[in-house]
This record gives sequence, C-alpha cells and structure tokens, in this order.
Amino acid sequence: MRMILHEYSPSGNCYKIRLTAALLGLTLERREYDILKGETRTPLFLGEVNGNGRIPVLQIGDRFLPESNAACFFLAEGTRLVPDDRFDRADMLRWMFFEQYNHEPNVATMRFWVAFVGEERLTEAQRAQIPAKRAAGDVALKLMDEHLADRDWFVGSGISLADIALYAYTHVAGEGGFDLGAYPAVGRWLHRVADEPGYVAMAA
Amino acid sequence: MRMILHEYSPSGNCYKIRLTAALLGLTLERREYDILKGETRTPLFLGEVNGNGRIPVLQIGDRFLPESNAACFFLAEGTRLVPDDRFDRADMLRWMFFEQYNHEPNVATMRFWVAFVGEERLTEAQRAQIPAKRAAGDVALKLMDEHLADRDWFVGSGISLADIALYAYTHVAGEGGFDLGAYPAVGRWLHRVADEPGYVAMAA
Repeated sequence: MRMILHEYSPSGNCYKIRLTAALLGLTLERREYDILKGETRTPLFLGEVNGNGRIPVLQIGDRFLPESNAACFFLAEGTRLVPDDRFDRADMLRWMFFEQYNHEPNVATMRFWVAFVGEERLTEAQRAQIPAKRAAGDVALKLMDEHLADRDWFVGSGISLADIALYAYTHVAGEGGFDLGAYPAVGRWLHRVADEPGYVAMAA
Repeated sequence: MRMILHEYSPSGNCYKIRLTAALLGLTLERREYDILKGETRTPLFLGEVNGNGRIPVLQIGDRFLPESNAACFFLAEGTRLVPDDRFDRADMLRWMFFEQYNHEPNVATMRFWVAFVGEERLTEAQRAQIPAKRAAGDVALKLMDEHLADRDWFVGSGISLADIALYAYTHVAGEGGFDLGAYPAVGRWLHRVADEPGYVAMAA
C-alpha cells in the first residue's frame, strides 16, 4: 500500500512518523507544506487531507490519518515497537497521551515560538503564557528524568512508540530554551534512542 | 484482577473510564480524591499512584495506569469498543489524541474554570486565556459536528472508545459556556451514546 506523509519536516510530530518508519524499514513518500505560510489552511488541504488544518497526516492508499501518535501506532502495531504485554501496551499509550497533553503543548510550543515564529512576533496573549509553558515543560522533563532514573526505556525492556513520541521534541528542547543538562537520565536515554539500528536524524 | 479507579468523580476524564467499564459490564472499585483540596498532590499520591499528580489512574493489581484514554484502551482492547480493522483502530486513537490535544484543554478547562473554580478566582493569566480557549473549543466542536453530519459514530459502524472519549466533556460543554445548540449532529450523537445498553450517567 502506497503511503504518503503530509508534513512540515522541522515539526517533531512529523519526525515521529519518519523515525518510526525508519526503525521499521518502511518507506514513506513525503509531501512538504510550509505551515508558516498557511499551506495547511487552504481549502484543498482542509477538504482533502485534514479538516483540522494540521500536519502530520499519514495517507494510506486513499485514506487519511491525522495525529502523529495515531499514525505511528498504525505503522508499528504488531512490530517490536509495540509491547506484546497488554498492560505495557496501554502504558505505552499512557506516555503518548502524556506527550500530547503535558509535553508537546509546552516543550514543542516554546520551540516553535522561540525558534520559528520569533519572540518579537508573538501576540500579547502568547507572550503572557511563556512563564507557565516554560514551568510546565520543565515539570514534564523532570517527570521523564525521574522515570528514566532506573530504567532504559519508558515501557518494558526495549524501545517502543512511547520513546519515539517523547524523543521527537525532547532532543531539540534546547531550541526552545530548556536546559537538558538538568536532566541527566533523559540525556542518557536520548543517546540510547539515537544508537538504535535504522535511526534517522530529524533533518534527514 | 482487582481494579481500582483513583478518581475525582466530576471529572470527565474519570467518567470515560467508568463509562467504558459500564458498557463492557466490568466492575471497578472507586477511590475519590478532591482535586480542589490538593488531594492528588500529597507525597503519598505522588509516590504511589501517579508522579504526575493527576487523576484518573486505573490501578490493576499492583500496577498503576495514568491517562484516561490509556486506561480505557486497557479495559476495552479486544472488545466491540475497539475496531477490528487496523486503519479504524488507529483512526480511533486519532480521535482520542484529538480529544486530549484540541478538545479537553479547551472544552474541559473552560468547564473547570467556570463551573468548579469560579471565574472570580481565576488568575490573571488564566483569565487572559479565556477568549482563545473558547474559540478553540468551538473549533473542536465544529469539526466534530462536520464529521458526524453523515455518520453515526466517529469511527466505523458502531460505538468505540473515540465516542466515549469525546462524549465525556462534550455532553457537559454547556457548563463551560459552550452552546451545543449550534452543533445539531453532535446533539443527535450525544443521544445515540446515551441510548447504548449499559450506559451510566456522569453523576452515577
């Protein structure tokens, strides 16, 4: 089945899907949209690809699957990246929901605001949220660091989608002003992910 | 296996798990915490139940599973509430991630701020976010309404966890000041969910 990734390649959410595919040896076609130019808000994109106006969307044949973590799940179900154990499988999803609720809106949004939009171009309302987002991002990173203090991977004994989902924006958190040096267990885990056979970098 | 739901019962996130269990005929013990009194931020709760300081947490034997949608997945995997088709199963998760990213932080947070905390007790930073949260909540409800215009359920031909996840805060969105009358397809779908055999109300 032909699979096309509709993406904005600097987005960590898009990178998650490319990294999942790479670790599994799957090939995805790639179609690039510049979100800073509104290319995912055109009538064509909204009508055909995603009514939510967001990337990534994984196209499988003629069906469209938005939401990065759902796309990773589609690719990886039944492989070594999804645990066999029922509790562990749900626990993997637990970290993926944590990523979208507690991590991404803080760690990824800070990166987007600082490194892509530029602080001087933020709205007043966005600027007012910076202290809370920075604090909440550090809470998320600290929780990850505590969890990883005595284990190699987020769930079970090997890499899973939980690691991939959390890796995407954590390894570039410095671009949003977070100090990864404060989280040594996270630092060791980042190296572990990058050492996986088949690993591709975000810029690849 | 003994299962205990650690919860704050007015929370829609906790209700999702009770509704999933009810539709499946499963029994959960329930343990109540008052989040307004900080009962999920005690050292005991943080150390034993969830280091993230949040409810719900589903305890299965001596293991703890945070994140409402992950707990629903644990309960429902292999049942009629999770589609058999691989794409549909990922598409169900797509709507569950949408719920946590686009819906809950707006629709649920507005309800919590207005109906539980009280607008007069919000911080300045919270009050500044109200217009954006209200607008984003309406965008999420409109997307749901468009999706449901020509189908009965979010994914496939029957109720799934996608419906349960989105039902929890949508059916009480009025408490946060959202006008559900503007979303007729959502209104019909809310009735469809409430008509399911085994359905339990939020206050039950």
